[in-house]
Amino acid sequence: MEVNIPELLKENSKLVEKKLDEYLTDLDEDTSVLTQSCRYSVFAGGKRIRPTLVLETCRMFGGNEEIALSCAAAVEMVPTYSLIHDDLPCMDDDDMRRGKQTNHIVFGEATAMLAGDALLTSAFEILTQTQAPAQMIVEAVRCLSNAAGSTGMIGGQVMDMDNEDNKGELTEDKLIKLHAMKTGAMICASVQLGCLAAGILPSDPRCLDLISYADSIGIAFQVVDDMLDVIGDEKDLGKPIGSDEENHKTTFLSFYSLEDAFEYAKVLTNKAVATIEEYENSETLRELAEYLLNRKK
Amino acid sequence: MEVNIPELLKENSKLVEKKLDEYLTDLDEDTSVLTQSCRYSVFAGGKRIRPTLVLETCRMFGGNEEIALSCAAAVEMVPTYSLIHDDLPCMDDDDMRRGKQTNHIVFGEATAMLAGDALLTSAFEILTQTQAPAQMIVEAVRCLSNAAGSTGMIGGQVMDMDNEDNKGELTEDKLIKLHAMKTGAMICASVQLGCLAAGILPSDPRCLDLISYADSIGIAFQVVDDMLDVIGDEKDLGKPIGSDEENHKTTFLSFYSLEDAFEYAKVLTNKAVATIEEYENSETLRELAEYLLNRKK
Repeated sequence: MEVNIPELLKENSKLVEKKLDEYLTDLDEDTSVLTQSCRYSVFAGGKRIRPTLVLETCRMFGGNEEIALSCAAAVEMVPTYSLIHDDLPCMDDDDMRRGKQTNHIVFGEATAMLAGDALLTSAFEILTQTQAPAQMIVEAVRCLSNAAGSTGMIGGQVMDMDNEDNKGELTEDKLIKLHAMKTGAMICASVQLGCLAAGILPSDPRCLDLISYADSIGIAFQVVDDMLDVIGDEKDLGKPIGSDEENHKTTFLSFYSLEDAFEYAKVLTNKAVATIEEYENSETLRELAEYLLNRKK
Repeated sequence: MEVNIPELLKENSKLVEKKLDEYLTDLDEDTSVLTQSCRYSVFAGGKRIRPTLVLETCRMFGGNEEIALSCAAAVEMVPTYSLIHDDLPCMDDDDMRRGKQTNHIVFGEATAMLAGDALLTSAFEILTQTQAPAQMIVEAVRCLSNAAGSTGMIGGQVMDMDNEDNKGELTEDKLIKLHAMKTGAMICASVQLGCLAAGILPSDPRCLDLISYADSIGIAFQVVDDMLDVIGDEKDLGKPIGSDEENHKTTFLSFYSLEDAFEYAKVLTNKAVATIEEYENSETLRELAEYLLNRKK
């Protein structure tokens, strides 16, 4: 039986948003604006791919759903904080995101920056509040901080800053490294946290397989992203296309034709699927990989 | 025998800086600028009061010095990141700090913001790398995230933003709350982490006494800070005085004369000292409290 991935993403979003709502309560009127600013961006939509990876990995291994939901909420806070900081005038200076005004346009730059800082801090705080065994929590904090920090997401952002207006100077290997750090690391952390919620340590062969799956879909995701920035439908995407070319960015299309890029993404997706194929209950994660390959937005 | 506090602060600084140096290594040339930006602010000096509180609390209870040093390094990263973000144009827009150019003047705003984000993330990562039992690490992450987040330091900053240009609107109670959150929470976290490094949980009566000590010296520290902004020596302080008045900030001197403010700080210091007096080996922490009361910078 086929899994209805869009429906699944919606259902998982609801579950994670309920959890996020519990964590982001406004208990102190003196700092109310901070909570409002955090909530504004956390509830601004998005595909919630990463929380779904946490949940579905945990489900595949029959793990604890409550712990997985907390991990999913923590995982979602990290890219959210990062986007708030990214949109600030000192970074990309974006006024709109997903059809809404960006955080600093609504709350001012200072509050937006602090809201980003608060969300990053909350991500770690939430992990300590789960009912998981202490060793699992320590591993979860380790995974998340590794993925979010200078060897992961932030490091990738630094490489990406160098990439703007530098077209042609980045090799394909460096481009892969950039994306493995900037977005891939948090995708890996998602499956790792899903494993931890099922009591499976990062060094367990099962988790290593899931990491391999995540590595492949992470790069495939970016290849498709680069394609959509050229051939996507602006209405579907909710943002103008052509921004990579405008910013003179090196993308996978600097190295591949559109057709070859899709072939490349397909090879990566097949590799991801093959890695987990023999696991019981892996159907959802396999279909999710296919869905991400064929997505139009 | 009296403790030489300035000498002790110097020695502890050296130990913590050695640890910070180990954690902030430049292993990847592609993200080298990030590491350099982090190191620039981490090694820009400062009194290192918080790391000393971690170390001396741990020593008082005969705890593990190696674990305490890692906790001290983590604790020092949080205010450092916060100062980098504070100095940005969208916050206080400061060009100089401790006689050096601020981070964004040297590395640019985008890198400075990311360096702040990276330091906050590293603080949690470091805690997971200590040799402490898992339960202690979980408690340490919980303490640090609580103190650094929206119910602690960041919440206090949000209240402080409201305080600027709002002279007279803040009650004394709110002012105490603001400082208890903005700087007090991290001072409390420092003694809590010192306790944890000695295997003492936050709910242990000994840790509760240390928290009470930290609460008192935290407020006393701020009262003295407010006084020094009026009667301090600019050369000693390394910064111009009178900035609170210039920014129309409510300070403790909005409620107390200089003489009464010092009396208030003295009462708090005596309370702090009395709280830990009966503990063996508490001399250093007691003298540290006195030193902070009588400091000229």
